[in-house]
Amino acid sequence: MERWPEREGLIVDGACRDALLPVGKLFRPMLLLASADAVGGDLLEFMPAAIGAEYGHAASLVHDDLIDGDEVRRGRESVWSKYGNVDAILTGDLLIFCLFECLTECIKLGVPAERVVAAVGSVARAGCDLCRGQSLELELSGSLTTEVDDYLRMVQLKTSALFRASCQTGAHLAGAKDADLDLLTSYADHLGIAFQVQDDLLSYTGGEGQMGKDRGSDIRNGRMVLPIIFAYQNESPSGRRDIEMCLSGQLDAAEALSIMTSMVIRSGALERTAGVAAEHALAASAAVSGLPPSRGRELLRGFVLQLAGSNDTSGRG
Amino acid sequence: MERWPEREGLIVDGACRDALLPVGKLFRPMLLLASADAVGGDLLEFMPAAIGAEYGHAASLVHDDLIDGDEVRRGRESVWSKYGNVDAILTGDLLIFCLFECLTECIKLGVPAERVVAAVGSVARAGCDLCRGQSLELELSGSLTTEVDDYLRMVQLKTSALFRASCQTGAHLAGAKDADLDLLTSYADHLGIAFQVQDDLLSYTGGEGQMGKDRGSDIRNGRMVLPIIFAYQNESPSGRRDIEMCLSGQLDAAEALSIMTSMVIRSGALERTAGVAAEHALAASAAVSGLPPSRGRELLRGFVLQLAGSNDTSGRG
Repeated sequence: MERWPEREGLIVDGACRDALLPVGKLFRPMLLLASADAVGGDLLEFMPAAIGAEYGHAASLVHDDLIDGDEVRRGRESVWSKYGNVDAILTGDLLIFCLFECLTECIKLGVPAERVVAAVGSVARAGCDLCRGQSLELELSGSLTTEVDDYLRMVQLKTSALFRASCQTGAHLAGAKDADLDLLTSYADHLGIAFQVQDDLLSYTGGEGQMGKDRGSDIRNGRMVLPIIFAYQNESPSGRRDIEMCLSGQLDAAEALSIMTSMVIRSGALERTAGVAAEHALAASAAVSGLPPSRGRELLRGFVLQLAGSNDTSGRG
Repeated sequence: MERWPEREGLIVDGACRDALLPVGKLFRPMLLLASADAVGGDLLEFMPAAIGAEYGHAASLVHDDLIDGDEVRRGRESVWSKYGNVDAILTGDLLIFCLFECLTECIKLGVPAERVVAAVGSVARAGCDLCRGQSLELELSGSLTTEVDDYLRMVQLKTSALFRASCQTGAHLAGAKDADLDLLTSYADHLGIAFQVQDDLLSYTGGEGQMGKDRGSDIRNGRMVLPIIFAYQNESPSGRRDIEMCLSGQLDAAEALSIMTSMVIRSGALERTAGVAAEHALAASAAVSGLPPSRGRELLRGFVLQLAGSNDTSGRG
């Protein structure tokens, strides 16, 4: 990859390659291109921005893994784990700057400058939201009185942010009308929530191999994910004391996860959590129904269905 | 400051306020505005970008202090020292995204979109350079065979980057011709080097209070600054062994600094270093002489003179 020159051999370039390759699901680039297609536009002109969306995603994972102390990502060593904290900070920063460079490259492919500026603005605001969402997540950590609304606000900032950035960038670059931009924004908000809630569930229903990451991370960091919030609401005083102990850091992470898993199952928290995911998946789907028929719109709907298809609370793994 | 809402009370917003206030010298915003003025332009239209230049600078300091383990900045606790590592990572990230948001705001003040896109591209590339320069600095740390050219390449990436970003942004927003953009780029490159070399000297000639930061940081981190590179070149084998010991981390930082200070003075390294600073200051001044006369051009020249005026190698403090 020419953007991360191997010949100069800087550690940070090698770390960027590791953060990007082998490629993941490329979900955010696909969101961007599907959104652009849904409002009409020549997708080839938007390829640099689609690549940028993946850079932004990779940047957030690199800093996130460092923040959470997660040693595994996509089944391999995370960047901080392999290169150390300092190069992980620099790698994330570099990927953020590259994301913006990518956006400006669309101008060479014929995208009007006004549209590029609008996209840069959307990505910048989404990036600010992402940071605030992560800061809020930290503040809520270990706070068992966290309300569902606090959690949803945090997720809308943290997880929906890069979905919004992708959908809005596609919309802006393709010259979407304001009404269509609003529909795609609403889609991204709800999809982000559905996705995060689903991801939170995976710690209790998914196997380690399936996730390619550390299942114990949320518990170890005292993250107030929705299954825990619901379990705490539903539990008796003695059950609540058990939850408090699991999040206190006094137990080994695997043991805490095992106890919490049986509690979220017996308290009905898994079903309630799955219900919230389904509700927001439905809202995402409804939002794009307002767009005219197109291949892009069907793709966007398909993403929701894929998510719903992975919504299996039977406790596999 | 409305951009960092106090009412929401997120830790990361408080940390951003701390990173920005009380304001420092605002050197990068002034570079931007002086550059814009030097090529003709309505400065009021560029104010959001000038504010953004300070955000970018603050972001780099927040991450840099965390990387270097520096506990003091502008005479106060650095952000990581006050808020912890995690919020320092998020604070720097947030300030980077805000920088780009600021650039897009110029469009509302009448700056043509093409110029804003060019500025975004310059800032993004400079940001990439900055990260690569910091990564290179880490790689060179403790490597006593570092050549002057390696050092200059690192500084041009690391320190000149945000000077380039400021000067090029001012030039782009004001619609500069390519030839003038090149002159301002050359000015920024040389000024950045002169500035960094001067800053490296300060550890040996300036008092702690004057710097508002930790004089022992470079030594503690084994940074290959120019005075050390020159001292190592000039020293006898036994002097070289002393330098190696100072950078080995075996000595207390204050003791290592004291030994290194006497060595850089006796080896003539201070004079050679001051000579390099003067050479690049001269080159910076020469570059802007190619611009037509203007208040902005005189300001840019004045910045060089200020730098030269602080070039005092008599060993005060």
